[in-house]
Formats: sequence, structure tokens, C-alpha cells
Amino acid sequence: MSDAISPLAPKSYAEVPAVGGARLATASAGIKYAGRTDVLLMLFDEGTEIAGVFTRSRCPSAAVDWCRSHLAGGKARALLVNSGNANAFTGKKGVEATRLSAQLAAAAAGCEPGEVFLASTGVIGEPLAAEKFDAVLGTMAQQSAPTGWLDAARAIMTTDTFPKAATRSIDMGGVSVTLNGIAKGAGMIAPDMATMLSFLVTDAPIAAPVLQALLSEAVGPSFNSITIDGDTSTSDTVLLFATGAAGGARVETLDDPRLAAFRAALADLTRELAHWIVRDGEGARKFLEVTVRGAESDESARKIAFSIANSPLVKTAVAGEDANWGRVVMAVGKAGEPAERDRLAIWFGDVRVAVDGERDAAYSEEAATAVMQQEEIQLTVDLGIGAACATVWTCDLTKEYVAINGDYRS
Amino acid sequence: MSDAISPLAPKSYAEVPAVGGARLATASAGIKYAGRTDVLLMLFDEGTEIAGVFTRSRCPSAAVDWCRSHLAGGKARALLVNSGNANAFTGKKGVEATRLSAQLAAAAAGCEPGEVFLASTGVIGEPLAAEKFDAVLGTMAQQSAPTGWLDAARAIMTTDTFPKAATRSIDMGGVSVTLNGIAKGAGMIAPDMATMLSFLVTDAPIAAPVLQALLSEAVGPSFNSITIDGDTSTSDTVLLFATGAAGGARVETLDDPRLAAFRAALADLTRELAHWIVRDGEGARKFLEVTVRGAESDESARKIAFSIANSPLVKTAVAGEDANWGRVVMAVGKAGEPAERDRLAIWFGDVRVAVDGERDAAYSEEAATAVMQQEEIQLTVDLGIGAACATVWTCDLTKEYVAINGDYRS
Repeated sequence: MSDAISPLAPKSYAEVPAVGGARLATASAGIKYAGRTDVLLMLFDEGTEIAGVFTRSRCPSAAVDWCRSHLAGGKARALLVNSGNANAFTGKKGVEATRLSAQLAAAAAGCEPGEVFLASTGVIGEPLAAEKFDAVLGTMAQQSAPTGWLDAARAIMTTDTFPKAATRSIDMGGVSVTLNGIAKGAGMIAPDMATMLSFLVTDAPIAAPVLQALLSEAVGPSFNSITIDGDTSTSDTVLLFATGAAGGARVETLDDPRLAAFRAALADLTRELAHWIVRDGEGARKFLEVTVRGAESDESARKIAFSIANSPLVKTAVAGEDANWGRVVMAVGKAGEPAERDRLAIWFGDVRVAVDGERDAAYSEEAATAVMQQEEIQLTVDLGIGAACATVWTCDLTKEYVAINGDYRS
Repeated sequence: MSDAISPLAPKSYAEVPAVGGARLATASAGIKYAGRTDVLLMLFDEGTEIAGVFTRSRCPSAAVDWCRSHLAGGKARALLVNSGNANAFTGKKGVEATRLSAQLAAAAAGCEPGEVFLASTGVIGEPLAAEKFDAVLGTMAQQSAPTGWLDAARAIMTTDTFPKAATRSIDMGGVSVTLNGIAKGAGMIAPDMATMLSFLVTDAPIAAPVLQALLSEAVGPSFNSITIDGDTSTSDTVLLFATGAAGGARVETLDDPRLAAFRAALADLTRELAHWIVRDGEGARKFLEVTVRGAESDESARKIAFSIANSPLVKTAVAGEDANWGRVVMAVGKAGEPAERDRLAIWFGDVRVAVDGERDAAYSEEAATAVMQQEEIQLTVDLGIGAACATVWTCDLTKEYVAINGDYRS
């Protein structure tokens, strides 16, 4: 495993401000790692509303089960996240560990266990020693503070090579509100799988059902439009908390005009965080944006875009800086969605390499190669049979990916 | 690209005998390669019946279109295959090239163009110079002979590291018949995609509709149960020719009792060829058999087996000789098929590593590692919710795969 920071990491971080009604603390509980933080506690003022979206895995982790079963209440007072152990595929012990974790956090936060939300990331199949939280949670609650978002992002990293945090300020019908987010991504934690976690906190006053609708809408073109290797964790979790501390009347319906700016900011922030996850993909050297347009339906465009973005042959070609449109045709064809060979057109950047079922006669190898040598590459496919489109993001497939995921035993 | 022969190649080849009614010839037409054969011509006696199965790609090659449109006749007199150029995504020029290829082969074979079947493998998007066949086909027809099957297998290789051929003899109701097959597999031909081709020839007297039913049945548990990287070529083609030269009454119905032994031999031969393709997967060092049992339906078992076999995380773990059952759970979960976390059991070889939703307490790391160090590894998942099962085959994902598919430009 490499300790090098991804070449696609941010050059600098913007200041992430406080969000009224939320306090944070991090600590080292020694779950697995030494010499770094591995626990994050967030505390929320009474009345905080919550929404969540989780992995589609049929074998979810115990923490995902816990969150799902407590989401219906719509209220949250605390979030407890640990790195180092995913508490996944741990049977009854796993269920016990979530119960104990929530009890300990509830005691520290002064709330009910059902108001505590949980996420765990790290090794799978190992029992989580939840009793270790006992030693740190009291102090964490005492020392919790409104700032420290980048430290929070650091505490939930596994083999991420950089912390991921972002912020937006929004004018919501004359009230100034803040929306912060942290995420961790698709770095492997040897010997086990990666997990995508993201926690979003706002001081906007939004009722839980509205918050849920906004979050469900936001994940589609952001977290659900990225792929590193097509694999899906048992623990993927996105939670959105709204403390309401900014003031103003509570938003109770989706058609409230005050939501327009918030909606846009949420879309923008989740897309930024999703992009940071891709930029920290295992072994990633290049960031690839795949757009499919001219499709029969949005769903069809999306399937074809993912067929391209998940193709090992396309991803190794990008790693090799090769404008290999033949492999793109292959990936379009294998998606099984409506497409007509002789109407396809393909661009790398603004260089059209294929059109009307053939290599573009005007295509310059030099121009295409110049595109492929960039760190960020746009790949566009026009199917020419409809008006629907979709965009997804991925990274290249490098030898480093294989090394990270296969070498730890050799 | 490496010139090394796969460590999973056969140590020796059995003699492949003649098949009555079929003659072969190979030649160097200079399609792309220098210093090797790149054209295969097979000639069949009058009355030869044909069946075919093709890629499911929505962007098939011109040769696939040609074969599909001429299969209805059920009769074949010649097969022309070239390596070096796939004649895929070549627009109208590609259609023209198939027409010219068939005309040239028909002239050499003394038959109608519609009785000529075609396959092309190699670079995509480059026009195929079909006129080059003109210089070699006359001599090939003259020099064609009943033997030379391994040479035939060599002529259709792209970046395959070894030729693939197999044979079976069958007692078909007192008549001795032969079934030969050659295949080429999933080696990349830089800078383009791999293709799976297989050509099967028997002297059994079987009518085309019956032959088609037999072939469609045989590809399911063989060629359609293997995966290298989940990518699908635009040119995948399997053709089965029956010359009838062995004599005996023509088999006209699927319930003819003489078919039992033939059916079994066809299943066995296609599975052998499919396995050779996996053993020659790009960068393959290990052969992985994935069996999913206890599933709700065969289709569900198959989807889960492919989810495991196509998972980059599982395949890199196999490369790293790591009995990483956590990644297997992940792949089961992401398949989206019925599964219950707490009923899953997982074996590597005969070592049970997980049971009832937890790590198997009796699991010995040493025993599991000994399994993973083998060249051939059986991975078994019992879902514990039904009686259906499926088996698929794949190879590991190594740095060499990335090098073969990504390095040629760097």
C-alpha cells in the first residue's frame, strides 16, 4: 500500500466554518490504527432533523441496519463514526456492538440511543470492540466544538490519501444558512473493502420528510454517479442533518420557494464531495468524466455511461493515455441498451474520434493524445437516437490499483 | 505486452484427428501481422449443416451481421477467418469488406457467397483490406487438408499466448463420429479489444435446427460462463458445422436417442475450450472456479457468481493469494439478488472461512493460504435460501493485465 497522496488531491482547503447547532470532536480509541484519530462524534441541538441514504447491498453492515431502523423518527442528537472496523458480516455480535455504541454515545450526548446514528468503516468480519468507545466518548462530548471539520474528515479516513470536506453558504429567503459536508472514499483498507461515507450538516430549518426528499434527489447525480471499480460496499452511508439553528420558519413542503437555493447548493456540494472521492480512487492518476447523450432515456444513458466507466479496458486505456474509442464502442455495445452502431459519435475532450459508425476522417492523433495526457479527461458519446443524457465520473485503472488491492499478502 | 506463455497453458497437446467432410488451410495474407499466419479457410462437403451463436453486443461487427443473416439457410460450404483486423465499427466499408471476402472465398470453394461464413478478430475501426485474401485463397483451397487443427488454432490467435484445440470421439448409435473444436480467447490485440471465437466441426449427421438447439444449450455452461474482465467483444462468434460424413441417418429431432452421447461430448468439449480461454486470460496467473449454491433460482445463482467473478476486488485478492471472504460478501451483496447475510457460508477449496453470517471460528488461516497458493482455486458460496446453483470461471486480476491493456502507449 502506498502512502503517497493522490496527484489529484486538492492543492489547498477552504476554511470550513461552524454550523449553528452542531459540535464535533475526534479521538483515538485504538480500534485498529495507531497514531491517528479513529472516532468522530457529532452532537446536535434538540430538534435536529435527519435524512439518510444507504448502500443497496443485500448484505449491509450492522450500522446500516441500525440507521435504517431509526431514521423513521426523523430526529437526531448524535453521530458516532469509527474507522478501522466496518462491523460488517459480524452476525449477532455486530448487532450487539451497534446497540452498545449507541448507548455509550447517548450517555455522553444526553439523549436516547434511538437518536444516535452510527457508521463504521474498515475491516469486515471482525467483531467491533465497541466498549473502547467508553474510554473516549465522555471527554469527546465535553471538548466538542463547532469547528474542526477537516479533523473530522481525517478521523473517518481509511486508506484515503487526503481528507475531504466542503462548505456552501446559502441565502434562504433572507436567512443566511451554512451547509457543510465531509466524506471518505474508495481507498482500500487492507485486507478489506472500501466504503463511501458522507455526513452533511446544515443549520437550515427543514423538516425531515423534506430533507429526505432533497437528499434522495441529490445523491443521484453525485454519489450515485461515481464508480471506482464497480464494487459496492456493505456500509455506504450518506446522512444529512438539519439543526434549524439559522432560524426562520421551518420548511415543511418541497415546493417552498426558499428551497431553490438550498437545493442547488446541496447538489453542488454533494457533487464536489463525490468528485473528491473519485480523485482519491485507489491508484488513480486521472479523473474521467463520461457523458452519454442522444440516448433513448435518461436511465439508458446512465447504464451506458456506467458500462463505459466500469470497463477495465476503457480504464486501462485512460491509464495508458490512449484515445481508444474502439473500447468505448465495445462498452456501449455490451450495455445492452438501445444503440445504433452507425449513428455513434465519440469525443475525447473536444476531439471527435469517431462519427457515423466509422473513425472520424478528420481525427488528429496528436490532438487526441494531447487530451489524453491531461489529468482530467472528458469522454463524450452521442448515440444519435434520442435526447436523453447522463454524466458519470471515474478514475483510471492503474497497476497501483492492483498493488493496493492485491499486494499486501505478497 | 508480454510474449511469455501463460503459466496455465497445457503442458502438451493431444492429436486432433481429421473430421470427414472438412478440410483446412492457413496462410499469411499480411492483414496486420508479419511472420505468422493470419487467415484460416475451412472447406466443407456439400450438405454440411451449420449453427451459430453470437455476441450480445448492440454494436456487432460486420462479420457477425453477415453470419446472422446467412444462418437461416442452415447450410455452409466454407469458413473464412482472419486475425489482425476485426472489421468492426467500419461502417459501409465494413459491409463491403464482408461481401468481398465471401465472394472471394466462394470462388475458391466453388460455392455461393451465402454459404460462406466469416469471422474477423483484431483491431477495431480500421477498414479490412479484404482484397488481400484474393492472393492466398486459391492456393489455400488447393492445399487444404483434413488435418492441421493446431495450425488452424494458431492462425486465429491475436494476443493469445497458446493455441486452443480439443477433440472428442463419440459413439452415436453405433456410428463413430468425431467432434473437433478450436478457439481463441481473451488476449488483447493492442490497441484494441479481445474477441472470443470458437469453431466446432463434426462429421455427425445432424439437421441444422437440431444443431442450433444443441449449440445454444451448450454455450450456456461453457462460453457464457466465463469472464476475464466483464467486457464483451463486438465480434464474439461460435459456429458449429456438421458435415454428416460419418454416415447414418440424419438426426432430425432433438429427442433422437442417438443425441445423448453427442450432447455430452459437446458440453464437455465446449467447457474445455472455455477453460483454455480463461487460462489464457490477460495476465492470468490463477484459474478461479466460482460456485454459488443454495440460491433461489439458477439465474440468481448465476448473477451472483458473475458478480463475484467480475469483482476487481475479489480478483486482485486472488492475485494476492488472500482468502479475502469479506470481498466475496461484498460481491454477493452488490449483485442485488436474494441473499441473507446471516445464512451465508463461504469456502476457499474445502476450507470454510465463513458461516452463519460470521467468520468461521474453526477457520485456519494457514489452511486457507495453502489453498490460495494453488494455481487452481475453487470458491464456493452457499446462500442457504434455496436449492439452485451455478458455476462460472475466471482468472485473477494482475498488474500484468493492466500492463497489457494500458502500457502500449507509455
